[in-house]
Amino acid sequence: MRPSGRAPDEMRVIDIQTGFTKHAEGSCLISFGDTRVLVTASVEERVPPFLRGKNQGWVTGEYSMLPRATHTRGSREAAKGKQSGRTQEIQRLIGRSLRAVVDMEKLGERQIVLDCDVIQADGGTRTASITGAWVALRLAVNKLMESGQIKEDPIMSKVAAVSCGIYQGTPVLDLDYDEDSNADADANFVLLEGGNIAEAQATAEGATYDEEGLLRLLRLARMGCDQIFAAQEEAVRK
Amino acid sequence: MRPSGRAPDEMRVIDIQTGFTKHAEGSCLISFGDTRVLVTASVEERVPPFLRGKNQGWVTGEYSMLPRATHTRGSREAAKGKQSGRTQEIQRLIGRSLRAVVDMEKLGERQIVLDCDVIQADGGTRTASITGAWVALRLAVNKLMESGQIKEDPIMSKVAAVSCGIYQGTPVLDLDYDEDSNADADANFVLLEGGNIAEAQATAEGATYDEEGLLRLLRLARMGCDQIFAAQEEAVRK
Amino acid sequence: MRPSGRAPDEMRVIDIQTGFTKHAEGSCLISFGDTRVLVTASVEERVPPFLRGKNQGWVTGEYSMLPRATHTRGSREAAKGKQSGRTQEIQRLIGRSLRAVVDMEKLGERQIVLDCDVIQADGGTRTASITGAWVALRLAVNKLMESGQIKEDPIMSKVAAVSCGIYQGTPVLDLDYDEDSNADADANFVLLEGGNIAEAQATAEGATYDEEGLLRLLRLARMGCDQIFAAQEEAVRK
Amino acid sequence: MRPSGRAPDEMRVIDIQTGFTKHAEGSCLISFGDTRVLVTASVEERVPPFLRGKNQGWVTGEYSMLPRATHTRGSREAAKGKQSGRTQEIQRLIGRSLRAVVDMEKLGERQIVLDCDVIQADGGTRTASITGAWVALRLAVNKLMESGQIKEDPIMSKVAAVSCGIYQGTPVLDLDYDEDSNADADANFVLLEGGNIAEAQATAEGATYDEEGLLRLLRLARMGCDQIFAAQEEAVRK
Amino acid sequence: MRPSGRAPDEMRVIDIQTGFTKHAEGSCLISFGDTRVLVTASVEERVPPFLRGKNQGWVTGEYSMLPRATHTRGSREAAKGKQSGRTQEIQRLIGRSLRAVVDMEKLGERQIVLDCDVIQADGGTRTASITGAWVALRLAVNKLMESGQIKEDPIMSKVAAVSCGIYQGTPVLDLDYDEDSNADADANFVLLEGGNIAEAQATAEGATYDEEGLLRLLRLARMGCDQIFAAQEEAVRK
Amino acid sequence: MRPSGRAPDEMRVIDIQTGFTKHAEGSCLISFGDTRVLVTASVEERVPPFLRGKNQGWVTGEYSMLPRATHTRGSREAAKGKQSGRTQEIQRLIGRSLRAVVDMEKLGERQIVLDCDVIQADGGTRTASITGAWVALRLAVNKLMESGQIKEDPIMSKVAAVSCGIYQGTPVLDLDYDEDSNADADANFVLLEGGNIAEAQATAEGATYDEEGLLRLLRLARMGCDQIFAAQEEAVRK
Repeated sequence: MRPSGRAPDEMRVIDIQTGFTKHAEGSCLISFGDTRVLVTASVEERVPPFLRGKNQGWVTGEYSMLPRATHTRGSREAAKGKQSGRTQEIQRLIGRSLRAVVDMEKLGERQIVLDCDVIQADGGTRTASITGAWVALRLAVNKLMESGQIKEDPIMSKVAAVSCGIYQGTPVLDLDYDEDSNADADANFVLLEGGNIAEAQATAEGATYDEEGLLRLLRLARMGCDQIFAAQEEAVRK
Repeated sequence: MRPSGRAPDEMRVIDIQTGFTKHAEGSCLISFGDTRVLVTASVEERVPPFLRGKNQGWVTGEYSMLPRATHTRGSREAAKGKQSGRTQEIQRLIGRSLRAVVDMEKLGERQIVLDCDVIQADGGTRTASITGAWVALRLAVNKLMESGQIKEDPIMSKVAAVSCGIYQGTPVLDLDYDEDSNADADANFVLLEGGNIAEAQATAEGATYDEEGLLRLLRLARMGCDQIFAAQEEAVRK
Repeated sequence: MRPSGRAPDEMRVIDIQTGFTKHAEGSCLISFGDTRVLVTASVEERVPPFLRGKNQGWVTGEYSMLPRATHTRGSREAAKGKQSGRTQEIQRLIGRSLRAVVDMEKLGERQIVLDCDVIQADGGTRTASITGAWVALRLAVNKLMESGQIKEDPIMSKVAAVSCGIYQGTPVLDLDYDEDSNADADANFVLLEGGNIAEAQATAEGATYDEEGLLRLLRLARMGCDQIFAAQEEAVRK
Repeated sequence: MRPSGRAPDEMRVIDIQTGFTKHAEGSCLISFGDTRVLVTASVEERVPPFLRGKNQGWVTGEYSMLPRATHTRGSREAAKGKQSGRTQEIQRLIGRSLRAVVDMEKLGERQIVLDCDVIQADGGTRTASITGAWVALRLAVNKLMESGQIKEDPIMSKVAAVSCGIYQGTPVLDLDYDEDSNADADANFVLLEGGNIAEAQATAEGATYDEEGLLRLLRLARMGCDQIFAAQEEAVRK
Repeated sequence: MRPSGRAPDEMRVIDIQTGFTKHAEGSCLISFGDTRVLVTASVEERVPPFLRGKNQGWVTGEYSMLPRATHTRGSREAAKGKQSGRTQEIQRLIGRSLRAVVDMEKLGERQIVLDCDVIQADGGTRTASITGAWVALRLAVNKLMESGQIKEDPIMSKVAAVSCGIYQGTPVLDLDYDEDSNADADANFVLLEGGNIAEAQATAEGATYDEEGLLRLLRLARMGCDQIFAAQEEAVRK
Repeated sequence: MRPSGRAPDEMRVIDIQTGFTKHAEGSCLISFGDTRVLVTASVEERVPPFLRGKNQGWVTGEYSMLPRATHTRGSREAAKGKQSGRTQEIQRLIGRSLRAVVDMEKLGERQIVLDCDVIQADGGTRTASITGAWVALRLAVNKLMESGQIKEDPIMSKVAAVSCGIYQGTPVLDLDYDEDSNADADANFVLLEGGNIAEAQATAEGATYDEEGLLRLLRLARMGCDQIFAAQEEAVRK
């Protein structure tokens, strides 16, 4: 039995509230159950130095937890003077995941920064971030297309992410904190609409797993992402 | 005429949503118009080194802007590796303001950290932070009293803050961003219920001002704070 | 009775020794009693990036305490790798105070940096810094005018600063360390010749204060600044 | 055709030179073709703070590239003052991978640090690091068992890592730099002797891939790791 | 001919003003011509971690240039967030030089920190720092002996430093900035009263030098230090 | 008797293995007994800002110890976020030493960076670094001359370094760790072929020394460097 009483293949309630802040070109407050992340998409009319003059754009992500997003307060990274390895790893994953679905030439020589700030954490903050980042990106690109700054849609597909794991011997979908901190294996899948994989990361915690285990986690992730794609669709339609 | 159409002594709408996050001992999302700050109060059963073994507590504040709280995206301080002078100045002000109304011996040897994270900025983020911090602190202390960890209420008074300024020659209350960036003088007052001053900071921007000017700003601040005290009262009653 | 035996409205002896270092375009060693600050004004023929090409200049300040300026040795900020919040707050105040009396267009596209290094501290280091910074600035600008690099005097007024506070219930002027560390309220006023206010900062320490208290402090500050303006005048005349 | 002329399932030559440095409790210089990594295992009779007094040990990894390990010189991270996100991500992976095969209670309250310094890079530096780290760890633990400091062998299994990718449409094993920089997908597998998975990370670069693609990469990795386990065995036997 | 008109073996005027600041246990403002350094000695009743419980003391030095000590303003190291290699090299030299004449057991388990802050630079700041540091140390130790905290004098000898160099083919003593920036070789000698060497550092700048050259520089340094020892003696006698 | 059984004027075995890494323009693994340093020379077609447009080149050095080069593991400077004073002092010495033998105009507007990474330490790492850096530099310059990028040889002489010290009252050559940590005096000489001195640094550790002592150390260094020059010659001939 899962601590939350959910079935093994049952997602938490997904809620996506778009337009949460007024300044960003795209934004949403995304919830996977009690995990809540504020994502903003900022369009900047410049690209990183290594891309200057190459007629292509860039998409990147940043990630942070508010100090009291968690059970006990964590130190502020700005006060400590550096970002943790975990933060940097997640930022790199967010950027790669979104870049997997964007045609950089169609985007043009501009950059979109996806800021993912975790307001409340209950497991799955990186997957909620990626999922919400796609929504914020979609809204920001819509605005660029409406204003005529972009001619052809640079977004090639939806992208979403979900965590899976082996909890007390059973593969389960969308782990919350109680499960995550006790899982034998922990995986994050970033999938494209249609089912292709942008990124798969699976780590043994207590026990290692075999090929069959990896496949079962992947199949759960597919089921979860189908629901997430529907939630993304509904959010950007509003 | 003020850009917002408000009367010179008219505050923006104040909204205080308590219990915004589930982990913190006290929390609220406070809005002064379009300025929105998430404040959490975290109780820690330890004190800073300089207070160890002295039978008294400590209250401190931290402050940050989310990168896209503003019109154009700002760099993340955690990525730059240090907090700006402005951030540190505001953090120090938040801490001093709240400590002005807390009896540290009654609080006992524990620390309460007030994290103020600006979700959206439209002028007055430091005053909204102080105001919301009192609410979060009140809720956290209530919890400590209910559980019997604290016997006597260590909070001696309400404390609230508001900005005033001289805009196109007229003293006005609770400046929004449009006014703030064009004001001749800019002041922040931190007041106690009853009208005493915890902190007064007034800076000439375009033109300097005289004693009479300072007094007019202080009187506006008193009017504003009376409304804020009422909003605080209502928020903690809920 | 004040620990120093001074009357409530009595300043410490002010001494300003100009030309203390040979390289700086302007310099002085300023003393308010036992508080001694070395101030240098450095003229640089460039402006910060945000002002480039705008035909205006900039004035900024930096502040530091020598490690053993105080009763017990403090760590060197360069060794710790960052400036404290207090240091940054004071630097920002010095810059704002001096900019309040300079016409940036008349200064032309150049920067003047005012370095305030506290040799010995006995209360009031920030007010001595601002006061001495005006003298160093005046000397540096005189040199620019003599050489013909500046045509019209960009300095619009004298500016000076002094601290006041409520010590054992009595408002007193120009606090030394003994008073400062025991005062109920602590205020710093930056005033222009003629009496206008460039900056007012008043903080309750032990007890809060009311409007009347604020006014009494401001009036003491005016009296003190009149003496300081005379000392500045004499110093730059030499 | 692969640039190196290798068959799709052909590993580069693996060479493991043990005892490369005299001070470390275990060490080796491991080569996967032109990729060369110096790995040392350092035994420290203390554990990180979060494990103190818990009667268990810890295994952790650190990773660095010498500045001229690559085609063009990279800046030294010590000179830049911080480790890149990539470095931290790899360090975390090395630590997790080795911890997956160590029984921390049998290790006892001590820490083993695995330092992986890349002398020359030609693709696959992280997989060579993990593979060599197991050898250095095995040698260090042997020494602890010989001296009687450890009674029961805490190492539960061999662990090795290899990269795979899709290069010009074909799944290939053990990518060198030329392939790695042009691959459509890039995966790193950390496997246990027997075939179980400790960690799987697969990233789409140019094109995404499907479940079948993921499985083909995993099977190549298994083939590669079987050869690596043999090389590890031979190295520690010497 | 030397730019200053001095004879090759002629020192600049040495001036040592003791008791320059009131808080430090020992202090002086030392001048070698236009080079002026403020040195303070701070006695701390603790030792660095590596010496705790060993019944011996420690002497260490810190060094800094005020930003406008030089012809053009340099950035403040505290603002840059790190000390330069030059600063650290000089600090290490100051500490080593003073430790060469102190019996750490007689000093007892306490630390004396020698802060050398350059007020004005005209060549030879490190040698003036070492020379002045001995004076400040002597005064601080005298105070400890007078108060009975130290029984036996831990200072075994005077120590002083001077620079020499080869300027336009001629060995010269006590280089000023004009000479220093054009010298073919540049040496710093730290000598003990009696003539023994604590430290010798000689660097070829334009041209290398031979054994004879090194000896001639050393002999000049001896002559210079004899005058410096006399100045130190006179300063501490006052 | 020396711990190693060597005669007072006996060097350790010197071994220089050129071409140790394939990417660098010049490289070697140099050993002085058990001290082993990997040196690479990287040619960059740019110069530091202060030399731009001056038709001359630059040579600089960087130095680092691998964490377990020593008896007990040291922290990684990249993880600590800054380079130690010792590291910076050695880097500066390496750069100065090599620049002493290079004609910067003949080098042309390019920079050569000499990275010295200590693989294993047993005393004398800085002198081995300088000696090996000359070999790597020679090889890199040879390549530039062969390709015609440089017309005239910019290297004016060989340069090498060796340590000497006073061990149990006897001057000895090329100290290993056991001697170095117990020596009364410790000196490093950087000499040019022919015997001229580029740099001499001699420090008293336990006891100070006199002129005669300094000369005896210098003469030992000359003997040692003659052997080192021969080893350099042989290495670059291969």
